[in-house]
Amino acid sequence: MKNRRIILKQRATGLPGSEHFELVEDDAPEPEDGQVLVRNHFVSVDPAMKGWISEAKNYASVETGSTMRAFGVGEVIESRLPGLQPGDFVCGMTGWQDYGLADDSQPFFRKVDPADGPISTALGIFGISGLTAWFGLLDIGQPKSGETLVVSTAAGAVGSAVGQIGKIKGCRTVGIAGGPAKTALCKSEYGYDEAIDYKSESDLAGALKAACPDGIDIYYDNVGGATLDIVMTMLNVGARIVICGTAATESWLPPPQGPRLERAILVARAKVQGLIIFDYADRFPQALDDLRIWVNSGQLVWREDVVEGLENAPEALASLYQGVNMGRLIIRTGP
Amino acid sequence: MKNRRIILKQRATGLPGSEHFELVEDDAPEPEDGQVLVRNHFVSVDPAMKGWISEAKNYASVETGSTMRAFGVGEVIESRLPGLQPGDFVCGMTGWQDYGLADDSQPFFRKVDPADGPISTALGIFGISGLTAWFGLLDIGQPKSGETLVVSTAAGAVGSAVGQIGKIKGCRTVGIAGGPAKTALCKSEYGYDEAIDYKSESDLAGALKAACPDGIDIYYDNVGGATLDIVMTMLNVGARIVICGTAATESWLPPPQGPRLERAILVARAKVQGLIIFDYADRFPQALDDLRIWVNSGQLVWREDVVEGLENAPEALASLYQGVNMGRLIIRTGP
Repeated sequence: MKNRRIILKQRATGLPGSEHFELVEDDAPEPEDGQVLVRNHFVSVDPAMKGWISEAKNYASVETGSTMRAFGVGEVIESRLPGLQPGDFVCGMTGWQDYGLADDSQPFFRKVDPADGPISTALGIFGISGLTAWFGLLDIGQPKSGETLVVSTAAGAVGSAVGQIGKIKGCRTVGIAGGPAKTALCKSEYGYDEAIDYKSESDLAGALKAACPDGIDIYYDNVGGATLDIVMTMLNVGARIVICGTAATESWLPPPQGPRLERAILVARAKVQGLIIFDYADRFPQALDDLRIWVNSGQLVWREDVVEGLENAPEALASLYQGVNMGRLIIRTGP
Repeated sequence: MKNRRIILKQRATGLPGSEHFELVEDDAPEPEDGQVLVRNHFVSVDPAMKGWISEAKNYASVETGSTMRAFGVGEVIESRLPGLQPGDFVCGMTGWQDYGLADDSQPFFRKVDPADGPISTALGIFGISGLTAWFGLLDIGQPKSGETLVVSTAAGAVGSAVGQIGKIKGCRTVGIAGGPAKTALCKSEYGYDEAIDYKSESDLAGALKAACPDGIDIYYDNVGGATLDIVMTMLNVGARIVICGTAATESWLPPPQGPRLERAILVARAKVQGLIIFDYADRFPQALDDLRIWVNSGQLVWREDVVEGLENAPEALASLYQGVNMGRLIIRTGP
């Protein structure tokens, strides 16, 4: 059985693009004991991929020549894992390819129930996006009713979920997003009290001060950089900053400079904490229960931006860092 | 009754010196209901004073013309606070003066039992120094046996207590201090496994790597700056960084630059948290119980550096930032 897959051709020092990848075709892999062979229907395009293929130190890396690491969801074709049958749907780390292997050691591996909604949601609101929002905001951010929550990439797959969960918890929510279409979505779909367009705003600090008259209690940060620096001057005592992504910085080689932050952390007795969702795998079921309830009740909405065709994954990844997508960016690879 | 006191003459933008203060003499204050009049025996000289008199945003400030804020310990001369009698000893925020008022709303206000040791310890190991070490290390740092703990200003009043408590909790302890006398103390008195002299070490990163072959799990930071930047490149997953002071930075106006830290925080899933000891006042008795046990058993030793005479407090404060003192720096004001 032929399998098209996209391999990493060379590591990147800055933004990923199609020059870093190559489409190859060979035989589909054979499952071993404990594995299932999955016909991917959808595979993911994630902001974290920049780190996975970067030369810089990271928590996870893809080796040159390997199939690009990605989440996928699809149909079980062959099962050597008790409890799963051909025809079942699963999600796992199946990679940028038509057919991938999955097993229960993979992050996010689980059987997907089509009754929960389109199976693609296993890559989004019921997958890495929703879970990252849930753990980052609730575990690290610990929102309390009446607090002010600021979210960067506020209309993105993670950010939009963070804003809505913050609203469910009674926060005043302020979203920062790029461009009028995204800020409009922030208010019309994701319920933010205020939305700031950082691309058109000439005085981001002033706009953020106006939007946060009582200061900032929680900052859910997907970008770092200059926005983080501004937020750090507006913290309330006991503020929590969730470091979930650093999209504003193209390259960490060499490490870019910025204002020193330790004094602001001290004065506000702030907590700045990094989040990588894989660390929370044993508590995913608890979070998924919440997410299902909120989606079913209409309190938590989500969008997808679907690109057709595996071969377009590298360009889709490049476009992600241009901020083109308006929802969870995924690739349809399957039937 | 005449009272000598030192007032803040002008705020500072950098290091405090005698030019910022003035000694004046007027009548001792009269206690109101709920207050005691205290004849100070000892008053404190604290690294935090730079922030208290700075133009920059801070958690506490002294107004120009006011008596310099300081901790003091001494004898009750007149009491309008039930439960305290003339002849009792108390500590509180009695200021740089011969006679100060204290009441139970002040940080660290408590009756001092001379049976615990010299009453000056209420400003040190049984006061701000010991308590800051206890809460910063145990509450934020959460040391586990076998972890590597790095401490800056390792021979200082707070740092030396942190290192010893870390040892009690089973950590490998690595101290960073300035000069051979202090690094010798780190090993001979405070039980550090390794001590690094940052003043003579030309390759601090290399020395720290050699001293921490298993990486860094906890960094108790009293200095910030370049040392913090080096530590951030050596963090283990789940590391905790206690931001207790920023002594390495002379002035925060304008904010100095340094390498951006958010990527290191993300990759290590680190927690960087600021500590100001006043926030923990309702739990001081619990910490003092521990500190008394460890001091009595000889597991926790401390040193004082006593300067004679209230009039010498401003110069003593200036000397603090030169790193001259070899222990808790206090001023003897009393009999």
